[in-house]
Amino acid sequence: MTHHSSVAPLRIGLAGIGTVGAGVIRLLKANADLVAARAGRRLEIVAVSARDRSRDRGVDLSGYAWEDDMTALAARGDIDAVVELVGGSDGPALALARGAIAGGKALVTANKAMVAHHGHSLAVAAENAGTALKFEAAVAGGIPIVKGLREGAAANAIERIYGILNGTANYILSAMEQTGADFGATLQEAQALGYAEADPTFDIEGVDAAHKLSILSAIAFGTQIDFAAVDCAGISAVRAADIAQADALGYVIRLIGMADVDRTADGSAVLLQQVKPCLVPKGHPLAHVTGATNAVVAEGNFSGRLLFQGAGAGDGPTASAVVADLIDIARGEAGSPFSIPAEQLIPMQPAQSDHRTGQAYLRFTVTDRPGVLAEITAAMRDADVSIESLIQQGRAHDGGEVLVAMVTHDGPEGNISKAAELLSGSASLTAPPLIMRLLGE
Amino acid sequence: MTHHSSVAPLRIGLAGIGTVGAGVIRLLKANADLVAARAGRRLEIVAVSARDRSRDRGVDLSGYAWEDDMTALAARGDIDAVVELVGGSDGPALALARGAIAGGKALVTANKAMVAHHGHSLAVAAENAGTALKFEAAVAGGIPIVKGLREGAAANAIERIYGILNGTANYILSAMEQTGADFGATLQEAQALGYAEADPTFDIEGVDAAHKLSILSAIAFGTQIDFAAVDCAGISAVRAADIAQADALGYVIRLIGMADVDRTADGSAVLLQQVKPCLVPKGHPLAHVTGATNAVVAEGNFSGRLLFQGAGAGDGPTASAVVADLIDIARGEAGSPFSIPAEQLIPMQPAQSDHRTGQAYLRFTVTDRPGVLAEITAAMRDADVSIESLIQQGRAHDGGEVLVAMVTHDGPEGNISKAAELLSGSASLTAPPLIMRLLGE
Repeated sequence: MTHHSSVAPLRIGLAGIGTVGAGVIRLLKANADLVAARAGRRLEIVAVSARDRSRDRGVDLSGYAWEDDMTALAARGDIDAVVELVGGSDGPALALARGAIAGGKALVTANKAMVAHHGHSLAVAAENAGTALKFEAAVAGGIPIVKGLREGAAANAIERIYGILNGTANYILSAMEQTGADFGATLQEAQALGYAEADPTFDIEGVDAAHKLSILSAIAFGTQIDFAAVDCAGISAVRAADIAQADALGYVIRLIGMADVDRTADGSAVLLQQVKPCLVPKGHPLAHVTGATNAVVAEGNFSGRLLFQGAGAGDGPTASAVVADLIDIARGEAGSPFSIPAEQLIPMQPAQSDHRTGQAYLRFTVTDRPGVLAEITAAMRDADVSIESLIQQGRAHDGGEVLVAMVTHDGPEGNISKAAELLSGSASLTAPPLIMRLLGE
Repeated sequence: MTHHSSVAPLRIGLAGIGTVGAGVIRLLKANADLVAARAGRRLEIVAVSARDRSRDRGVDLSGYAWEDDMTALAARGDIDAVVELVGGSDGPALALARGAIAGGKALVTANKAMVAHHGHSLAVAAENAGTALKFEAAVAGGIPIVKGLREGAAANAIERIYGILNGTANYILSAMEQTGADFGATLQEAQALGYAEADPTFDIEGVDAAHKLSILSAIAFGTQIDFAAVDCAGISAVRAADIAQADALGYVIRLIGMADVDRTADGSAVLLQQVKPCLVPKGHPLAHVTGATNAVVAEGNFSGRLLFQGAGAGDGPTASAVVADLIDIARGEAGSPFSIPAEQLIPMQPAQSDHRTGQAYLRFTVTDRPGVLAEITAAMRDADVSIESLIQQGRAHDGGEVLVAMVTHDGPEGNISKAAELLSGSASLTAPPLIMRLLGE
């Protein structure tokens, strides 16, 4: 594409050459002319940095300057944009990000933990420095959901944003669905297949999804990012029996990140951010999202329901998102990282979920003795929880305990918490109850 | 939002105040502060034009200047951007679009027919005039698919783009699925409910989907838009029996617009653009798209499969897309309408589908007499079409004819056309066969 030879290229410094970094290098090589045509100029990697220079990554690094100290990338005069693929919410990644922005360089990052913890201060710094901060790859891999919210849905007041934000958890839940196996065995298989990490905590306990949700909330609702306020639970308590029971009721179980803004009695706006396993009706688009796929629903006051779906991780999809950000920067289209200027983002109090209403699925594991059911149903009555259907299942295959599952009528979520509290000291319960909200159609 | 009071507003002239135009007016009123915060300045309608000034549209027009002649909007010195919601591929809409661009004004349009027919020359004109041409609302209503392709997937070579691009056709097909009713009765019901127009030709014969597909093709493959080359068929030949048969085979029927680039034997690139009813496997995300919803899949060489889904029409969703374009313009983020500069868009020869391979569903309506099946199967043999399964159904309820359906093995699509040709003169067939491709998982 000789058209671009007269236009200065966008010069890139790349920090972190793991699978995603190598993916970015491969993409910029494979799609070089296409990317140049769309960006209006060439995208050229000038310098790279990673921990180990000698490691074979399957990509040729000989054409790039090497920096042992990645923060030196921020100081190079021959770089316009820094791509941070190091990971970790603080430490070297944050030092690099701050240094790059302070040096007036555009920063592109796939680091959801860093953005969730420091996205606001980085956005303030970037806007003060008049440079770009972009993080499409930090949320839902290759899906252009940051752009979709920031720009595609920009005309709307977003009423709610929710979705499947963690591929590992979704892989496990949908594998349990298919095989009927329990959580532990399915996790082990996912680890063997590379769908779950050796330490899967962040994925299965909802932390990774919470990182992403807090970023989406800030864009959707114009709030300062507040990761700490995400009410977060994982999927490790979900049993094969829950999935079977949900199926019989017409639902599947998905780990759902959900955020919306509510008003308290005194009229002030509060932000609810939850990551919880939920029962999703089989007619809902998210019920058909299986495997390591991510999907995000944004409900706008004019657009209605918008769904974005795709690969939530992987070198190719994540590299696709990183380079999309670089193309925007090369085009001169960056704008405010969180859609409105960072100084206008407001801090918002976290909502208590207590006054919300809805239906829920509750499952108790109990000892097999007389009176247990009476004890549970009395607690429900005392907490004003109305039961729509109650299923006492037979003896579980793995011991002397029995599962009792129920679906409540529409009612305040706070009452369910209260019922759980009333039962918390009971000797009849062998574990805390599993409480899952029913998502509407 | 006093922050913006010092920044000049984006001044808008609005032509055409039907349901979508009224939606744009309502949106800009309801979300005014939000839109200003995201756009960096206020969006203000200055002047409007429509056919009938006195008609009650449920919105207050008294604050806007009125132009009887809509092309006068293009000449006003107090307008930065013209929104064209008049419709029609030529005539007043095109005159207005050309006039606005010639006058250096940004043009936002929801007019798929005009963009499909004249998008290339309008883009050339806009780029020469240094102004913006944007048409998010012309493709799939409120779904930000133009942006998703132009920018979100910009790092990718797009391997294939396909989807459900017409809400009316999808409403009818999914209603037939649910009720078991035939096409004619379902269309009448859709008309009564407002899901189909009095003259539904453009929707049910695939023309509207073809308009949208040709626009998506140009962006995805960097080609000059070529609506005339879309190989187009509608859904009026689909019977309840076909839907039942597809269901038994594990499929649903959807009207699919699909485009990809292929190479001919001599190595030159050719573009296939088809709008056809297809059999979609129940495990595919598009199989779960029911009602008037649209959904588009873009397969990138790094991103993998991206799915965008939402309302394909309606005043709110379409207004959402129109205003998203206006926000981009207010932010100064416009760029090339078709992603790469119009002068670099190449004309591409249309592909013959003959050399493609795949599985297909064929359904014949035949007279009930001996030898018919032998005649059909002989034609298949002579055209080298291998049959995977053949289903002869009983006498159709509406006459003396019998339905014969079959699914072919993977094979050249050209052979199927040849078989149909061999049978075209046959007295046994009461209508041309219905041929539908099977979409892969």
